[in-house]
Amino acid sequence: MPNYAAVMPELGRIEIQDVGDPAPGPRDAVVRIEAVGVCGSDTAYYTIGRIGDYVVDGPIILGHECAGEVIAVGPEVTGVRVGDRVAIEPGKPCRDCRECMAGRYHLCPDLVFFATPPYDGSLVQRMAIDERQLFPIPDTMTYEEAALCEPLSVGIWACHRAGLRPGDDVLVTGAGPVGLLAAQAARAFGAASVTLTDVADFRLDMAREFGFEAERAGEGVRKDFDVLLECSGAPTALADGLWRLRADGRAAMVGLPKQDVTLALSKLNWNELTIGLVNRYAHTWPTAIALVSSGRVDVASLVTHRFRLDETADALMLGKHVPDSVKAVIAPQSVSA
Amino acid sequence: MPNYAAVMPELGRIEIQDVGDPAPGPRDAVVRIEAVGVCGSDTAYYTIGRIGDYVVDGPIILGHECAGEVIAVGPEVTGVRVGDRVAIEPGKPCRDCRECMAGRYHLCPDLVFFATPPYDGSLVQRMAIDERQLFPIPDTMTYEEAALCEPLSVGIWACHRAGLRPGDDVLVTGAGPVGLLAAQAARAFGAASVTLTDVADFRLDMAREFGFEAERAGEGVRKDFDVLLECSGAPTALADGLWRLRADGRAAMVGLPKQDVTLALSKLNWNELTIGLVNRYAHTWPTAIALVSSGRVDVASLVTHRFRLDETADALMLGKHVPDSVKAVIAPQSVSA
Amino acid sequence: MPNYAAVMPELGRIEIQDVGDPAPGPRDAVVRIEAVGVCGSDTAYYTIGRIGDYVVDGPIILGHECAGEVIAVGPEVTGVRVGDRVAIEPGKPCRDCRECMAGRYHLCPDLVFFATPPYDGSLVQRMAIDERQLFPIPDTMTYEEAALCEPLSVGIWACHRAGLRPGDDVLVTGAGPVGLLAAQAARAFGAASVTLTDVADFRLDMAREFGFEAERAGEGVRKDFDVLLECSGAPTALADGLWRLRADGRAAMVGLPKQDVTLALSKLNWNELTIGLVNRYAHTWPTAIALVSSGRVDVASLVTHRFRLDETADALMLGKHVPDSVKAVIAPQSVSA
Amino acid sequence: MPNYAAVMPELGRIEIQDVGDPAPGPRDAVVRIEAVGVCGSDTAYYTIGRIGDYVVDGPIILGHECAGEVIAVGPEVTGVRVGDRVAIEPGKPCRDCRECMAGRYHLCPDLVFFATPPYDGSLVQRMAIDERQLFPIPDTMTYEEAALCEPLSVGIWACHRAGLRPGDDVLVTGAGPVGLLAAQAARAFGAASVTLTDVADFRLDMAREFGFEAERAGEGVRKDFDVLLECSGAPTALADGLWRLRADGRAAMVGLPKQDVTLALSKLNWNELTIGLVNRYAHTWPTAIALVSSGRVDVASLVTHRFRLDETADALMLGKHVPDSVKAVIAPQSVSA
Repeated sequence: MPNYAAVMPELGRIEIQDVGDPAPGPRDAVVRIEAVGVCGSDTAYYTIGRIGDYVVDGPIILGHECAGEVIAVGPEVTGVRVGDRVAIEPGKPCRDCRECMAGRYHLCPDLVFFATPPYDGSLVQRMAIDERQLFPIPDTMTYEEAALCEPLSVGIWACHRAGLRPGDDVLVTGAGPVGLLAAQAARAFGAASVTLTDVADFRLDMAREFGFEAERAGEGVRKDFDVLLECSGAPTALADGLWRLRADGRAAMVGLPKQDVTLALSKLNWNELTIGLVNRYAHTWPTAIALVSSGRVDVASLVTHRFRLDETADALMLGKHVPDSVKAVIAPQSVSA
Repeated sequence: MPNYAAVMPELGRIEIQDVGDPAPGPRDAVVRIEAVGVCGSDTAYYTIGRIGDYVVDGPIILGHECAGEVIAVGPEVTGVRVGDRVAIEPGKPCRDCRECMAGRYHLCPDLVFFATPPYDGSLVQRMAIDERQLFPIPDTMTYEEAALCEPLSVGIWACHRAGLRPGDDVLVTGAGPVGLLAAQAARAFGAASVTLTDVADFRLDMAREFGFEAERAGEGVRKDFDVLLECSGAPTALADGLWRLRADGRAAMVGLPKQDVTLALSKLNWNELTIGLVNRYAHTWPTAIALVSSGRVDVASLVTHRFRLDETADALMLGKHVPDSVKAVIAPQSVSA
Repeated sequence: MPNYAAVMPELGRIEIQDVGDPAPGPRDAVVRIEAVGVCGSDTAYYTIGRIGDYVVDGPIILGHECAGEVIAVGPEVTGVRVGDRVAIEPGKPCRDCRECMAGRYHLCPDLVFFATPPYDGSLVQRMAIDERQLFPIPDTMTYEEAALCEPLSVGIWACHRAGLRPGDDVLVTGAGPVGLLAAQAARAFGAASVTLTDVADFRLDMAREFGFEAERAGEGVRKDFDVLLECSGAPTALADGLWRLRADGRAAMVGLPKQDVTLALSKLNWNELTIGLVNRYAHTWPTAIALVSSGRVDVASLVTHRFRLDETADALMLGKHVPDSVKAVIAPQSVSA
Repeated sequence: MPNYAAVMPELGRIEIQDVGDPAPGPRDAVVRIEAVGVCGSDTAYYTIGRIGDYVVDGPIILGHECAGEVIAVGPEVTGVRVGDRVAIEPGKPCRDCRECMAGRYHLCPDLVFFATPPYDGSLVQRMAIDERQLFPIPDTMTYEEAALCEPLSVGIWACHRAGLRPGDDVLVTGAGPVGLLAAQAARAFGAASVTLTDVADFRLDMAREFGFEAERAGEGVRKDFDVLLECSGAPTALADGLWRLRADGRAAMVGLPKQDVTLALSKLNWNELTIGLVNRYAHTWPTAIALVSSGRVDVASLVTHRFRLDETADALMLGKHVPDSVKAVIAPQSVSA
């Protein structure tokens, strides 16, 4: 049986290749990948070939928002069984270093992360994955929902890094997938109110459909937010948003502008703000699954477009070609004849 | 115009008396009280005349879960206006002592609290209240819902004292009004799961109707809870519940058994548990209003029985006479001819 | 008896004037001021007439690092007695607003602060001060030491805002009075190591005399600090220092460069740093007094120069004229005939 | 070359046996043990044969407070080198479970801990130890000091579990080795004041020599402590100490009375206290070494008696036979001919 993957042999090109059967280690399970969400980082590797210091250097398989079914397990696996439907955490830490032992495995310098060069991702039909990256999901949860536990994890962690407390008034700048999920996480963690900003009407409308306040970026007037979740990556979004926080306000910086960021710290200090930088997430999958499966967070409505594996290139370019899109999901088991 | 109150002139007796017009100070508003929830402490003062060191010594007006409409304001009031519908926080701190300045006004030694001897409560038609105890509510929120922001505040604060974090698995012992609201608060703050225990089928059924797991006290087997919210006041509930926590588990002690509590600390230490005692709440009203008005917490369904002001004695004894009751609410403006 | 003050009638000029007896309110004490430290902000008002939005507009008395003896008390004073030797906290909050009640009185929008326009400071012989700003000191503590509890408070609060934990390795950029006191506070709170940087050999030597590692700014190589306390105000000090933090590093921004600050946040995010802005301090005097009186912090050695009240102008310009100076202290009771 | 150990073949008997050369694994170092402190738990295993559920079942080597010199390293060791003088952490976690990954490796269910049945301890001349349990010490630090980093770790962690903050007033009940070290840790972390209680004059005198307030247990009157560190194990010490805390007081329970503990929680709740149970420590060695090597904590003065390896039985019974003893240290390299 072939094991097709969407391989990127060179910048801007995707080929469907049979990559052969995965070779699971003793604590690995083989997972049949059923859904892979497309992230902006996948598109960046596809179009530019790099994100910061990570440079694509040779063929790579993209995709890290994923879910599937366990179809085989290595001899030492105890946490999952064949037949388990699982959400997949794309990072594998060393479990030995200072960061891992401090409870911060996401900052492990030896973290192996899907679709981050030189490591392959999950746009493949079958994949060997350490059992500790697999989280069984309830029957009521779809694979698409399970795959989107990954961007939801970003939103959950943003709330954590902002020190969000129940009752906070929250401003989320950027209403793309991450912003919408950060907003939902904030609401699910007891935020008193959540307001999103964006430049695109389509995304503002979606924010309102999710029940949030929404305003065009730059047009808001409220200056009494407790928490800012910067999810746009716009170069001045953090600087602008910080002015809208009140005393003891806290910000998390999720969006990553290419440029350096200039801040008027000696004026912002008046309100004694705190700025937390964000690097992915840790320990979030059980929470994400609980929020989605209980209906407190709606990830399914983010999926505006679906693709077969052999349409991966289209999926990767969706955001650039279709302005009114939010999240593309690829079904690796679907390959056109 | 008379200003009727339900006065308790002596233990176990309630009289409707015209207590005369309230005399608001410069920062007080006069509030027409529209709803007053009955709390177990009201019933305790009515039947026993004391709670711990607080002893009823002379006539007293009970009631501290309340809401109403602002009908007049003192000359220095700036935070509310005539016509505002308000939830009412029943405690007034000194705003000067060490505790007040540390952000812990609820621990102020000079706290003036409704219906705690020697201070009168809110079972009265019109009452002068410091504006800083008044929180305007949206039009969509009922006075009953606003009154129940008080017991919801207990639940919110229990979560705070337990150090509840998103993703925690929560055990709530006791499914009375406080337990049900603590459970809802925990869910609204991102708990992964919430399980309630009780001895009464009626309350377990209500817990299930609210969407929670429910089990008869003493029959549960899960021992992987992160948080225990003890809301039953049963003498052994804390000791029993602590055994069901896993490593780093945290407990908040809301229920107050009359007896001392015996704990096997030198065995419980294995899991390095933390026990937080609870004394009311602080800073909770804005959060409570946000949770109720957004539909994340349902307080309305707790109200099983309603009473006129002149039925106050029946309302106070409801829990003792009607096992299948949860929360009684009194309408002070309703007085039988 | 005259009550001489060092009045600044216009930019760059100090006059000794008899300002008349202070008029204490009911909760005020009259304090005979015995020592006043000179702060960079005093010098800024003297030379430039402004700090940020605070503009000197009319005669002002400078000085806010101060201590003295209580010589009279208002009728409602209960916390201090005539004869008490006291350290003085220069800020008086409203004790009523959201920030005061949240335990953050230092962010009170109505804070009255010594020597911040339009409020006078403490370069005066006798001053009426709210008793809640007065902290009795032990006999073994000098007035100079008591006055320097103010800059020590800045250092204490910097540690708090950086989330300093016992065992942290700490980098302090800037070895002026605030940097040296922040470093001592960090050590007194259990820092594993403390390293200071500066551009001036004199200050590096003083840092070494206090037992710290010291290195010329820009020449350090360690990149494993947990905490950065930026106390230099140099425009790039924060940006440079952040690169020397390891994962989960935390920074407090005490120094206030006039310029905006540019940060490479999308690279710094890798280590998931946290940046806390700082606006003075809160609740620090008891701690400061305990640290100084127990010998854990040495403030006395910072005092390199002493002045009479009529030498205030010299004291204010000391830092500009004498490079090898650290802290000037003025004795208001000393006035040349 | 023989490798002598103090083996306990049966209750109350110690034999010096040659246990043969240690067999280091790839990440182990062989350590020549130079100092082993005697802990109450060693004495308990020697005299009673059990602590809680841990029962001695067969010969065992006691001792877990230890230090020595690295004399060989396995092929994969990178963190220490032959010749390194090291303090030794006696616990080895699995580095894989939920607790390990949460930063709580001390709560690892598979923790292998020296001298806790069925695992041997360090009363031996040469021992193979995982390099990750070894912490190089500076030349200025003695092996005895290094060994006592273990009980100091208990004190450090007690402060952590009590949520000790700079400026707290601290009460330590029990002035034995752990109490004296907890008190020193509290002072080194910025406690404003530290008071110890005990029943023995000898220990109270030692507390005073360390610069602390000291009072006979039961005779103290201050009720304004912020933190209680219960280090006596006396059955009522926690219950009594909690009454001496003020609002928001926090307690850590280090002492482990055999009996259950009875607490008046429904009265103690008034002050909204928090009780943290304690199970050893985590991440403390670097801090302990920094505190001792910088002189901020004096562990050396605790050592009142010293023994050769063949005097282990005397060392184990020291506390029972010599009331005025504090800490016994055994030198495993010293064996009488």
